[in-house]
Amino acid sequence: MTSYTKTTEKNLMVFSGRAHPELGEAVAAQLGVSLVPTSAYDFANGETYVRFEESVRGCDAFVIQSHTVPINSWIMEHLIMVDALKRASAKRITVVMPFWGYSRQDKKHRGREPISARLVADLFHTAGADRIITVDLHADQLQGYFDGPVDHLHALPLLADYIKEKYGDSDLAVVSPDAGRIKVAEKWAARLGGVPLAFIHKTRRTDVANEVVANRVVGDVSGKICVLTDDMIDTGGTIVKASEALMADGAAGVVIVGTHAILSDPAVDRLKNSSAIEVVVTDTLPIPDEKRFDKLTVLSIAPLLGRAIRAVFEDGSVTSMFDGHA
Amino acid sequence: MTSYTKTTEKNLMVFSGRAHPELGEAVAAQLGVSLVPTSAYDFANGETYVRFEESVRGCDAFVIQSHTVPINSWIMEHLIMVDALKRASAKRITVVMPFWGYSRQDKKHRGREPISARLVADLFHTAGADRIITVDLHADQLQGYFDGPVDHLHALPLLADYIKEKYGDSDLAVVSPDAGRIKVAEKWAARLGGVPLAFIHKTRRTDVANEVVANRVVGDVSGKICVLTDDMIDTGGTIVKASEALMADGAAGVVIVGTHAILSDPAVDRLKNSSAIEVVVTDTLPIPDEKRFDKLTVLSIAPLLGRAIRAVFEDGSVTSMFDGHA
Amino acid sequence: MTSYTKTTEKNLMVFSGRAHPELGEAVAAQLGVSLVPTSAYDFANGETYVRFEESVRGCDAFVIQSHTVPINSWIMEHLIMVDALKRASAKRITVVMPFWGYSRQDKKHRGREPISARLVADLFHTAGADRIITVDLHADQLQGYFDGPVDHLHALPLLADYIKEKYGDSDLAVVSPDAGRIKVAEKWAARLGGVPLAFIHKTRRTDVANEVVANRVVGDVSGKICVLTDDMIDTGGTIVKASEALMADGAAGVVIVGTHAILSDPAVDRLKNSSAIEVVVTDTLPIPDEKRFDKLTVLSIAPLLGRAIRAVFEDGSVTSMFDGHA
Amino acid sequence: MTSYTKTTEKNLMVFSGRAHPELGEAVAAQLGVSLVPTSAYDFANGETYVRFEESVRGCDAFVIQSHTVPINSWIMEHLIMVDALKRASAKRITVVMPFWGYSRQDKKHRGREPISARLVADLFHTAGADRIITVDLHADQLQGYFDGPVDHLHALPLLADYIKEKYGDSDLAVVSPDAGRIKVAEKWAARLGGVPLAFIHKTRRTDVANEVVANRVVGDVSGKICVLTDDMIDTGGTIVKASEALMADGAAGVVIVGTHAILSDPAVDRLKNSSAIEVVVTDTLPIPDEKRFDKLTVLSIAPLLGRAIRAVFEDGSVTSMFDGHA
Amino acid sequence: MTSYTKTTEKNLMVFSGRAHPELGEAVAAQLGVSLVPTSAYDFANGETYVRFEESVRGCDAFVIQSHTVPINSWIMEHLIMVDALKRASAKRITVVMPFWGYSRQDKKHRGREPISARLVADLFHTAGADRIITVDLHADQLQGYFDGPVDHLHALPLLADYIKEKYGDSDLAVVSPDAGRIKVAEKWAARLGGVPLAFIHKTRRTDVANEVVANRVVGDVSGKICVLTDDMIDTGGTIVKASEALMADGAAGVVIVGTHAILSDPAVDRLKNSSAIEVVVTDTLPIPDEKRFDKLTVLSIAPLLGRAIRAVFEDGSVTSMFDGHA
Amino acid sequence: MTSYTKTTEKNLMVFSGRAHPELGEAVAAQLGVSLVPTSAYDFANGETYVRFEESVRGCDAFVIQSHTVPINSWIMEHLIMVDALKRASAKRITVVMPFWGYSRQDKKHRGREPISARLVADLFHTAGADRIITVDLHADQLQGYFDGPVDHLHALPLLADYIKEKYGDSDLAVVSPDAGRIKVAEKWAARLGGVPLAFIHKTRRTDVANEVVANRVVGDVSGKICVLTDDMIDTGGTIVKASEALMADGAAGVVIVGTHAILSDPAVDRLKNSSAIEVVVTDTLPIPDEKRFDKLTVLSIAPLLGRAIRAVFEDGSVTSMFDGHA
Repeated sequence: MTSYTKTTEKNLMVFSGRAHPELGEAVAAQLGVSLVPTSAYDFANGETYVRFEESVRGCDAFVIQSHTVPINSWIMEHLIMVDALKRASAKRITVVMPFWGYSRQDKKHRGREPISARLVADLFHTAGADRIITVDLHADQLQGYFDGPVDHLHALPLLADYIKEKYGDSDLAVVSPDAGRIKVAEKWAARLGGVPLAFIHKTRRTDVANEVVANRVVGDVSGKICVLTDDMIDTGGTIVKASEALMADGAAGVVIVGTHAILSDPAVDRLKNSSAIEVVVTDTLPIPDEKRFDKLTVLSIAPLLGRAIRAVFEDGSVTSMFDGHA
Repeated sequence: MTSYTKTTEKNLMVFSGRAHPELGEAVAAQLGVSLVPTSAYDFANGETYVRFEESVRGCDAFVIQSHTVPINSWIMEHLIMVDALKRASAKRITVVMPFWGYSRQDKKHRGREPISARLVADLFHTAGADRIITVDLHADQLQGYFDGPVDHLHALPLLADYIKEKYGDSDLAVVSPDAGRIKVAEKWAARLGGVPLAFIHKTRRTDVANEVVANRVVGDVSGKICVLTDDMIDTGGTIVKASEALMADGAAGVVIVGTHAILSDPAVDRLKNSSAIEVVVTDTLPIPDEKRFDKLTVLSIAPLLGRAIRAVFEDGSVTSMFDGHA
Repeated sequence: MTSYTKTTEKNLMVFSGRAHPELGEAVAAQLGVSLVPTSAYDFANGETYVRFEESVRGCDAFVIQSHTVPINSWIMEHLIMVDALKRASAKRITVVMPFWGYSRQDKKHRGREPISARLVADLFHTAGADRIITVDLHADQLQGYFDGPVDHLHALPLLADYIKEKYGDSDLAVVSPDAGRIKVAEKWAARLGGVPLAFIHKTRRTDVANEVVANRVVGDVSGKICVLTDDMIDTGGTIVKASEALMADGAAGVVIVGTHAILSDPAVDRLKNSSAIEVVVTDTLPIPDEKRFDKLTVLSIAPLLGRAIRAVFEDGSVTSMFDGHA
Repeated sequence: MTSYTKTTEKNLMVFSGRAHPELGEAVAAQLGVSLVPTSAYDFANGETYVRFEESVRGCDAFVIQSHTVPINSWIMEHLIMVDALKRASAKRITVVMPFWGYSRQDKKHRGREPISARLVADLFHTAGADRIITVDLHADQLQGYFDGPVDHLHALPLLADYIKEKYGDSDLAVVSPDAGRIKVAEKWAARLGGVPLAFIHKTRRTDVANEVVANRVVGDVSGKICVLTDDMIDTGGTIVKASEALMADGAAGVVIVGTHAILSDPAVDRLKNSSAIEVVVTDTLPIPDEKRFDKLTVLSIAPLLGRAIRAVFEDGSVTSMFDGHA
Repeated sequence: MTSYTKTTEKNLMVFSGRAHPELGEAVAAQLGVSLVPTSAYDFANGETYVRFEESVRGCDAFVIQSHTVPINSWIMEHLIMVDALKRASAKRITVVMPFWGYSRQDKKHRGREPISARLVADLFHTAGADRIITVDLHADQLQGYFDGPVDHLHALPLLADYIKEKYGDSDLAVVSPDAGRIKVAEKWAARLGGVPLAFIHKTRRTDVANEVVANRVVGDVSGKICVLTDDMIDTGGTIVKASEALMADGAAGVVIVGTHAILSDPAVDRLKNSSAIEVVVTDTLPIPDEKRFDKLTVLSIAPLLGRAIRAVFEDGSVTSMFDGHA
Repeated sequence: MTSYTKTTEKNLMVFSGRAHPELGEAVAAQLGVSLVPTSAYDFANGETYVRFEESVRGCDAFVIQSHTVPINSWIMEHLIMVDALKRASAKRITVVMPFWGYSRQDKKHRGREPISARLVADLFHTAGADRIITVDLHADQLQGYFDGPVDHLHALPLLADYIKEKYGDSDLAVVSPDAGRIKVAEKWAARLGGVPLAFIHKTRRTDVANEVVANRVVGDVSGKICVLTDDMIDTGGTIVKASEALMADGAAGVVIVGTHAILSDPAVDRLKNSSAIEVVVTDTLPIPDEKRFDKLTVLSIAPLLGRAIRAVFEDGSVTSMFDGHA
């Protein structure tokens, strides 16, 4: 007998870096497993060390890390985890980055700039990543930055269903804070059952590029609860100004919605003190207690990630989770 | 003596495929050289054959091809030319594609779609391309699709200077045909000396995605000559509707401007019969005589390509040609 | 529990481009499946678009395309299908190209030529192909052009068995149209049960390279039905001249046999008007009705492709289909 | 039905080159299979030819070769076997090299030297190796030379258990022949139950680099049976000198232990005539009869390789075979 | 005329990240140039941004960064600088990392660990680095981790000449803090003119791995000024204990010498309070004022880096700077 | 000043392995340089060591090795030389292999065979080769096996001019020993001024593949001096049988000509005792004295290699050396 045959089994294992362990645990719980026990710490000079405490040979590995502050350390830890999995004979390695670090640096605005979003994709490819799962990319083109499958998940159903549940009886409008993101707002309007659409038009000085003179509301928002949506909330400047413009235009109220709650200073102060009645985000990035405030609602992205991971593991369809949108 | 030393020389050579030889010749003329004599023909079953008639060993090769109809054949010819140059020991190969074929397929709109713009970048990389020179990408992110330097040239100075010269005494406005392209319109407004800005807002049905109900003009265009700009004109539907909307809104006249004149049917009829007083394009793509019409003005992109090639060859700055924009 | 285990299943899916859908359907039918429903069309400027209408995640994909006229478009469609499968998480992608486009451009006859057959292999590798299935290569060395497994199938058993069935009672001879292909003719002679062998010797002018003066028959063909075999029939010039030489030498009749029926003009006229009593080919390339003529017999290659695909899918032996020949 | 589904099976096959067929057979026997029948011979000009006599499609291949004299031929045969497996559609290829050829050339001692140990890793990667299994590397850093998983096995348990069994009742000491390898000696001492440790300190002339003046024993060895351990025994000079120094220092006896028995001339004479009472090695490299002598004991490495291969095939843990050490 | 010919020039440019700008400036000054003006800052969420303020097209770029705390941020900035240079058409990119971050993680001590030193090499390769210049690697094998030229510089001449100058009249001994590094100590002894050698032998418990019982001095140090050398000083524990052992053994004094002054807490306190009379290091890593203390001497590595860069740029020999050692 | 500019120089250096140093020296002499002094020897266990004794930084390296017996060792030495050059910063590395080892294993004759000719190309690519120079490939397709430029030189002018000079006054015929190589014979006939052509037709048994029954001469050779040409002479069986067949057919004499003199046993005996009046070969492979015999003439390939290297170094045309043939 020159060969010995066995039925092949596949084996799902979920790993989490240290940036946002609660998310990792919640995703694992969704899948009915525990996180693989992992030692991770920093040496005295800041170098990161990682080791998995169980055999990972042949597993189908899903490695979750939030690219939050200190972002470079968490990306490096993420890369090191992938390297360790590759060398420990994981069969397939899926990098789960709910927020793709450096995703805004996706083109050269001026000469001699990097394209760091592509660099990040390449670094993970080099470390050994076979595929990426991510949520709400800043630009859809980033899917093309990775040489392999990218499952691009959308938080829209999660966020919109929450809004519908809570504000569905009000007179709603969907508002884009920027003319360039109207297509996303359209999807929102459709999901909310065909509510009207508006957007903020930044009137700019035409003789000086990028200098905004005023925010003008295009579309009728008076008397409406405005759902003001963006992909991320960083320092909160743009979105809060948009909120004030809507109120000035007669809106009945503003609910700010964003997938990625970066919340860099002074975002929390701005949002707290803004006219918005609620700020709804997901936990793709960790939100420490000191950044939480009364009108902030945080929805868990874990069920979505869990469903996507299960679909990837079981060869189900991720696209069907979003009615065909990729 | 164990070595023999010589001063290194570099040697610029320009090659053109068969898609748009006039452009290749014009670029070569700008640089003071002739195109390298090249045999190119198709075999009976459509396979393309290429051979260079002079030694190309050690040269700094610039290979120009317009990705026009029949686009797949011209892309394949372009790839084959690169392969032949690589195997014939060209020192460096720069692919000059004034219009990047498949550039609009730069993301997955729905699951199970290709990202053909990235594929094209990878095909050229595989064939042996070291770098790319291209003009007015559909999305800036495409620069990140190639793993190497991409010189992204802008036709804006060429086009805007023509407009300024011809219409500079009129009361001008710059109009974007789409809310998503306002940033480009801003650059136009600045280049024209700070003229006002407007854009076409497509009012859509919110319960059915992508169904446009009406084109509404945002911004004041009455009595103005509107410079309506887009990166490419394919079938001309969007841009001609925008033109009509502007006229309906009281514009004094509309000048349509676009870098890439794809002009697929029925673009020529639409443009000819439109309210626009002039249509200004470049020759990044060939425009055969039967597609030319009275109010069409074609500006040559050859001087821009020539300057960029010279800068690349002589290690000058391409960025400085565009005030730092990449 | 840190992992969740499942038995692995593999899932055969067959895809076909638009070049020769009948062949794709016939192969799928052999395997007891339907082709995966696929949207494919060209944009106004000739760019190809492809999308699969079903989830392909985790599948073992076999993608069939005939590299026929317009060959560059069909190759590009083939590449785009592979790209879409890669990004949609197909587990393994086998490119089935019954005729390997550009296979005759497999060396540099003169300096500064491309080696397009290698380029094609590299393009598919870059797009994401894991392996290739092909039929009757022009030169066996092409297997080495792809960096991965190439299953090289032979149409000889299919064609020879047909001949045996139909002409087995006659006095047969196998004739090679070219001294360089005698080894293939030997395999034919063996398969037909040890019939005699002949070949056409092109007498050339020795002072002018490649100028053929006359076709001389080497071997005794008088009174025999000659089976004149070649790997492909393009314009038909060589093979028809060989047929006439055989008849002039006293052959009782000539049956022309070729795997790949390229049939570029004026092949059909030449063959129709030739002395051959029958022309036997396979449908590796589509043969439209207007190219079919009375004495043309087309054997389906689909059963062979189907058996090979099943063997690849089930880890059976492809080599054993051909008595060990690769 | 657009797909056809089957349970996936995996299929272990073991291959052996001609360098040390007994080892290959012993490993296969451990796994309950036979070696895959393989034709291998050299052409008249020394080129190596290999062919497998059975289908290997889809198998999980383990390819064993000992990198012994003539080492370049055996490495090349090893590479050619991997190439043939890749092209014959093996699913995964594990290179089993019990002794990693060129492992001592792992750094540049002086400028313009190669790093041949890395080159060897790259050559196997290029040929198609997915992973490596090896035993007792000269430097642990070599694991990082291969871009993929390396299972690094340790012969220590095998060798130490033999020593314990045979000499466990004596008063033992573990001796490192070189100060630089003390860490390995510590592991030995622990495995033997906490016996004392010593090492040979080479007193060198400080004014002339690398010139050794004397071997001084550091640690108390008098009256003890000294287990003198090294990773490989090449010409045997160092280890025999160390043995003499130990005896001079009052040792009751010396047992020399080494994993890799290179035994280049004049190793056999030196060892035979040395004061050592036993020389214990493994058969990672073949030891022909003429190199065997009375006090040489050869332990089979096959059980260890067999267990590791089984663990790799069945996704078990290799690390756990060595208490977590990699 | 089909080509245009020019003499090729090469153009040295030096870039520095923000980790240790003084070193970058000092190196540039050695070379008679200024650092290329560079914008570098962090966004609110910690993402790093870099842009060069001058054209770098065609330059021979040397990019210096010290991998110090916060090490992951500085490595990422280093990678981003390389990416920007690649995309801006630098001709050749040399990464200058005086201390190779993660160099101690160069092997798997236990299963499921990463090999981060190799990962770092691969990340730079992916970003676009053509070559590396580094100083005093922790293990020479790391040169083999990069797939390209690595110029490995030695601080020994710089440090030893300082010692010779200052302590040359005393009775000196060279001491290795670890038996495994004796070969380096030998080079020191030779450079100092043939002084005696000693080392610290860690007596360990043989029944518990890695537990050190005592530090014993091997070699005669009584009455001597001991030059205690190591490649890096991190928390200083080992080296200070060694110093105390030497004093206890009758040494006349101890001078601690190390190339890389990591100086993680509590290194400064330990060294300050130790018996050592002087601590001599280089500035491969920045040493902020608060870490400087009276008996600390910092020698500049800039002249060595400058000479190596000049040699690389001018195709001189780097090896000859170190008498042939690589 | 942010940059420092210098004229670039290029620097030709020639290296030779140990397989055939006389050829290396002769080539270097042609170029007016000496071989770079190189240390090369084998360790006790057969591992090869190489080091260059001079700085090679920035050089344009040409590395010559004959792939002769023991072929695997010489190929490995060749690879190691390339590795050392890459790591020592050679600017460009051209592998000069006058005979491409394993070139006959260029396809799979049967399943589960390697394609070793491609493997060899890949191994050199991996080691760091930028380009290849070789002579008279067994099949032209091998040029496509290397992913980079291959300069394919032809010995025909050298050999044919010698024949013309010596036998030009006789009545000549060119004879191909195999029907498959007639195209090469045609080029010979043309070069000799249009002499007649013949070839040996192997009559085979058609019921048993590859069994040759008789060699029949096709073409008129009676009274002629036959120039019997092949690319290589290995054991000499085929060519000597062909010679006898020619004499039996009335030839006035036979001159055997071959580029690569492998001369495996019993080639020398066969040739010596054959009816051939002269055997003319080149020294692409070394021919030791004991293999030389009276009627053997060895022409030096060094001038051809020297001219090609000079053309490559100086960016001249290699193709023009052969009237456009590649």
